[in-house]
Amino acid sequence: MQNFNFSNPVKIIFGKGTIEKLGAEAAKAGQKALFVYGGGSIKKNGVYEAVLKTLAGSGITAVEHPGVKPNPVLSHVREGVKKAKAEKCDLVIAAGGGSVIDESKAIAAGALYAGDVWDFFTRKARAQEALPIFTVLTLPATGSEMNNGCVVTNEETKQKYSTGETVLFPKASILDPEVTMSLPLAQVANGAVDAIAHLIEGYFTTPDPDNAVTDEIVHALSRSVIASTERILKDPKDYNARASMMWSATLALNGLASCGYGRMSFINHAIEHSLSAIYDIAHGAGLAIIMPAWFKHYLANGGEQRLAKYGKAVFGSKDAQETIRDFEAFFRKAGAPVRLSEAGIPAKDIPAIAENAMGLIAMWGIKADKPEVEKILSGAK
Amino acid sequence: MQNFNFSNPVKIIFGKGTIEKLGAEAAKAGQKALFVYGGGSIKKNGVYEAVLKTLAGSGITAVEHPGVKPNPVLSHVREGVKKAKAEKCDLVIAAGGGSVIDESKAIAAGALYAGDVWDFFTRKARAQEALPIFTVLTLPATGSEMNNGCVVTNEETKQKYSTGETVLFPKASILDPEVTMSLPLAQVANGAVDAIAHLIEGYFTTPDPDNAVTDEIVHALSRSVIASTERILKDPKDYNARASMMWSATLALNGLASCGYGRMSFINHAIEHSLSAIYDIAHGAGLAIIMPAWFKHYLANGGEQRLAKYGKAVFGSKDAQETIRDFEAFFRKAGAPVRLSEAGIPAKDIPAIAENAMGLIAMWGIKADKPEVEKILSGAK
Repeated sequence: MQNFNFSNPVKIIFGKGTIEKLGAEAAKAGQKALFVYGGGSIKKNGVYEAVLKTLAGSGITAVEHPGVKPNPVLSHVREGVKKAKAEKCDLVIAAGGGSVIDESKAIAAGALYAGDVWDFFTRKARAQEALPIFTVLTLPATGSEMNNGCVVTNEETKQKYSTGETVLFPKASILDPEVTMSLPLAQVANGAVDAIAHLIEGYFTTPDPDNAVTDEIVHALSRSVIASTERILKDPKDYNARASMMWSATLALNGLASCGYGRMSFINHAIEHSLSAIYDIAHGAGLAIIMPAWFKHYLANGGEQRLAKYGKAVFGSKDAQETIRDFEAFFRKAGAPVRLSEAGIPAKDIPAIAENAMGLIAMWGIKADKPEVEKILSGAK
Repeated sequence: MQNFNFSNPVKIIFGKGTIEKLGAEAAKAGQKALFVYGGGSIKKNGVYEAVLKTLAGSGITAVEHPGVKPNPVLSHVREGVKKAKAEKCDLVIAAGGGSVIDESKAIAAGALYAGDVWDFFTRKARAQEALPIFTVLTLPATGSEMNNGCVVTNEETKQKYSTGETVLFPKASILDPEVTMSLPLAQVANGAVDAIAHLIEGYFTTPDPDNAVTDEIVHALSRSVIASTERILKDPKDYNARASMMWSATLALNGLASCGYGRMSFINHAIEHSLSAIYDIAHGAGLAIIMPAWFKHYLANGGEQRLAKYGKAVFGSKDAQETIRDFEAFFRKAGAPVRLSEAGIPAKDIPAIAENAMGLIAMWGIKADKPEVEKILSGAK
């Protein structure tokens, strides 16, 4: 077990009917909010009205910034920064999934920065301050509601890059499982795959796998994600399954599931970011394609024992090979693609995808060269 | 799954050689520390010198308040409050186990209160402010290093009462597993039993047991505590087992293991507090006596399914009866007493113990009358 720091100041307000508590929380931080959301699904499920009502009830004015894309793009972040500065917003409200929350974090930091917000993603600058951020989560998946990371795509350069700073932790996040009841099953699948991906990166890439407690937590959250997904597929209106999925996905990337793993590699994420940057596919779908291929590569490079341990605890698999098959079977059952071809990505693009991935691989300090990445991708044809 | 709030601002600094980071953390809060510790074991394991060195290195003066008892007593808390006020301390450093940390929390609140600190425990007053608290944990058990609760015994009235307020969360806690290497096995056992007790109260008393994620977390942490204990019993110098035990015990009572369980009952703790208040036995030992008796009572009152679920996941038990036997076997193996007689407590005292317990049972809003508590205690003869 490696040394670690753990600190997560986000206040979680979880359960039915909790959106009405947003106004009182936000009013502690300011009086004029930039209200960030996506393509308008929150106008169909009642979240939009509920947010405006609770903000108004606490005397908070909302300046709307709609239209965040599923892979949030830099141009739209820049627009939000401009709007927040012009309107002198003193807090940011995000209502949506990880994309909306990530864009909100970027805007919150950009609003208090004189330079270009992309500087934070290229490591040219670090965010030292940010407007206070409050979130209403509508899609369990990325964990952004309880961490300090955010990912934005520069659509001109096709770079999907990330940043993470202490000032980017939301002050409070509202998690009401009822607002996820109407999610399409494809989004449930993407969310489940994303949560699993967050759980496995540390588990399989830690340099120090003698860590009974964090291993147990990874197994526990994995089982909960899988069991909840299966219940939701059977009955999309199963509240307790929606609730367990929502809390599991949040815990999967709030820092808890990697305590003591030490320097882990986010290699599956690094490669996937290239898929969604180039082809604009859902992050979860891209991960369901990359993970089985990476597991095969990992198995061929000494990963047998670790794969077998995870598979036995989570799926009841008999060995490492069966663990990989069980992962694939779960992704397929959830409705995610597990091969590049199933997402319409031609095998001839592999060198270009690998080339793109090398940017993040270098930035994140992952030990992998282009031939290795091409080899991994070849396993996903 | 019930609605819940989760918020835990404690910064955890975990691992080998981390005590040296205390000074820099504490210096953010003040320059004159009340340095609270117990019977002097920290002078044998190097913690005392390490704390003084890091404080001095950050320009912090330490006023010592040694002599905290294993079940911290009110008179000593009051002395600490007096000292902190007289010396104008602006922070509190606790180096020890849960008793030292609990007493430090009480002193931190009492130092900024004009009345008697016991008011916080009788609910006559609520702590609105407290000196900033920093801890160096030496005994994994109570979770006090990452929560806002504290328990103090009024030795005149024989009341072991608790309080919990937002201001009582430590700012930062140092968890260095190496300082636990020299712990006597009896203390390892008490710590393990205490952690298990924290995990089971919510699990078995929740009104809403359809909670896949928190159930999985309780199973995960229970397994980790048990596996780590068994490794420590075999090899007390097993660092990774000490580390997993330390982090598991912290997570067992930081709020995570009861999310969504709703209104739970701390009945085992309420009854145990009477044992340690009256007989001054270790909290873990008292819990190892109460829990099997309470499980039998719970089984006789509809708890079969829940006991069987826990036992299957944690011990591999075949049914509820075997789960109770497996709990007892674990407590015995760890070296804890599992009957009143084994701790030298005569059965004729049961009515007096039950009478004492009714104070906390009423204060904590637990649904149990004196005959029921006597019945539970009779199962522990």
